[in-house]
Amino acid sequence: MHYPTIDDIHEAAKRIRGHARRTPVLTCRGIDGRLEAELFFKCENFQRVGAFKFRGACNAVFSLPEEEARRGVLTHSSGNHGAALALAARLRGIPATVVMPSSAPQVKRRAVEGYGARIVLCEPTLASRESTAAAVIAETGAALVHPYDNDRVIAGQGTAALELLDEVPGLELVLAPVGGGGLASGTAIATAHTSTIAAVVAAEPAGADDAYRSLQAGRIIPQTNPQTIADGLRTSLCPRTFAAIRDHVREIVTVDEETIVAAMRLVWERMKIVIEPSSAVPLGALLAGKVETKGLRIGIILSGGNVDLDHLPWAK
Amino acid sequence: MHYPTIDDIHEAAKRIRGHARRTPVLTCRGIDGRLEAELFFKCENFQRVGAFKFRGACNAVFSLPEEEARRGVLTHSSGNHGAALALAARLRGIPATVVMPSSAPQVKRRAVEGYGARIVLCEPTLASRESTAAAVIAETGAALVHPYDNDRVIAGQGTAALELLDEVPGLELVLAPVGGGGLASGTAIATAHTSTIAAVVAAEPAGADDAYRSLQAGRIIPQTNPQTIADGLRTSLCPRTFAAIRDHVREIVTVDEETIVAAMRLVWERMKIVIEPSSAVPLGALLAGKVETKGLRIGIILSGGNVDLDHLPWAK
Repeated sequence: MHYPTIDDIHEAAKRIRGHARRTPVLTCRGIDGRLEAELFFKCENFQRVGAFKFRGACNAVFSLPEEEARRGVLTHSSGNHGAALALAARLRGIPATVVMPSSAPQVKRRAVEGYGARIVLCEPTLASRESTAAAVIAETGAALVHPYDNDRVIAGQGTAALELLDEVPGLELVLAPVGGGGLASGTAIATAHTSTIAAVVAAEPAGADDAYRSLQAGRIIPQTNPQTIADGLRTSLCPRTFAAIRDHVREIVTVDEETIVAAMRLVWERMKIVIEPSSAVPLGALLAGKVETKGLRIGIILSGGNVDLDHLPWAK
Repeated sequence: MHYPTIDDIHEAAKRIRGHARRTPVLTCRGIDGRLEAELFFKCENFQRVGAFKFRGACNAVFSLPEEEARRGVLTHSSGNHGAALALAARLRGIPATVVMPSSAPQVKRRAVEGYGARIVLCEPTLASRESTAAAVIAETGAALVHPYDNDRVIAGQGTAALELLDEVPGLELVLAPVGGGGLASGTAIATAHTSTIAAVVAAEPAGADDAYRSLQAGRIIPQTNPQTIADGLRTSLCPRTFAAIRDHVREIVTVDEETIVAAMRLVWERMKIVIEPSSAVPLGALLAGKVETKGLRIGIILSGGNVDLDHLPWAK
């Protein structure tokens, strides 16, 4: 199965420069002390639209040939990828359409509309979503940009790890969360070809552990009925992310819900930054002792910071 | 009335280097667009102990002659300054005592104890606090480090503005919150002697507007019965902070509670960082149109990020 190369990631880095932020890398003595390690947090919560997703969407949008681009882009992700695609399209000056279930929360609709995309509502079923998307494509000729089953998107996501490895020499371990596998794949490819010493570990909620089970089984086992607060990680691997992860990730570790929330809160309290539950999964894995950390220099990709401040997971 | 000079602030910067963090300066396109200005946020919420207070405490502790230092330091601030003094003393390897009312919340006691300071409880009255502190000083010979009525402390607080002005050229306006006036004084002295173009504006909660009224009256009017969520800003000016602010601050603007909370939430949502209510007061002043911002390059000192995540001001 084909997946992006390190050259694709380097090209993506050039392409999105000036659009995507080079996000800061933060450290925290308190957490370092607790884990007896040196941690370097790559803050994609500070990325545009509040998540790493902007990197992949931006690379995909700016990769399109002019003629194709003019017909616009489309996706059916109502989360961070939808907002990211909307902003990337606006920056290129082309139309974007986001197909969204009518059950999607108002806040997500407003975010996508705020970036100037058109929303087309569908029924909250896979069949309706696909037929609605197909109808828009038939009508407009728009290019579908899948949130992770897309080489340009994966290459874009890999640029975060590239920046982290460039900024922090001597990393021995790099962690990213895994959902559909776009970020984990990009991180793994970037790391494998940039560092001779860093291993990549992907962290996954125990309540949505399809990647873990898929790697164990040696074939994709789709996620059914995911049960996790980490709403960015409920999706299943696709063949290209499965292959990239199988080839370049040392292991996948799973984290229970309580630990995810505790890690999220620890980052808010000690680092004074807002991260979403998905971002907290890798740190959760370390806090739970799922990976040996002692004495290591460790990079963690904090995937995003979009949370509903009226419904925090520790609220009573 | 005497107050620190720019030389004192430069000396403080040298003295605390290696102990205090050089905190990052963050920007936010969304907020810039709303105010039609360029804002640069100096993130003292990322400072050690989570607030700018560490700068002043650190400068005070490391300024003490060896013999005096060995007898230890003492304060009667149970907030960020108490924690900051405790950490600074630990770094120098000298004892610290924090006098605290028995009514102080457990979380504050634990923070101070966590940095290794001794806590001495008193009744929650000014008289008890002063007599308790005097007894400790008589017993140990410890040096009292007031949270703001102290030149070394003010000089330390001024180092945040020094770093901001060094990192961001061409600032035309610098804003800081004002409570007891340590940060506002240090910011104003540092700015007046470093920039030829930047004006300093101090922002204060309308429900604790003693600095505003004092400047209007030309004499200190102590704060009685402050009513504000910005718990770091309930204190009154002292003669030295009054004089520094009178000489170097262009104006003091006041901000209502609703605007403080809205500004705080805006920063959490758009910038993905955790700030405490006191930090949000300057931005609140801008959002409320209290200061002309259009086209300006503006620096804002975000004073700290210590909040109780179980009791956020927008919780229903």
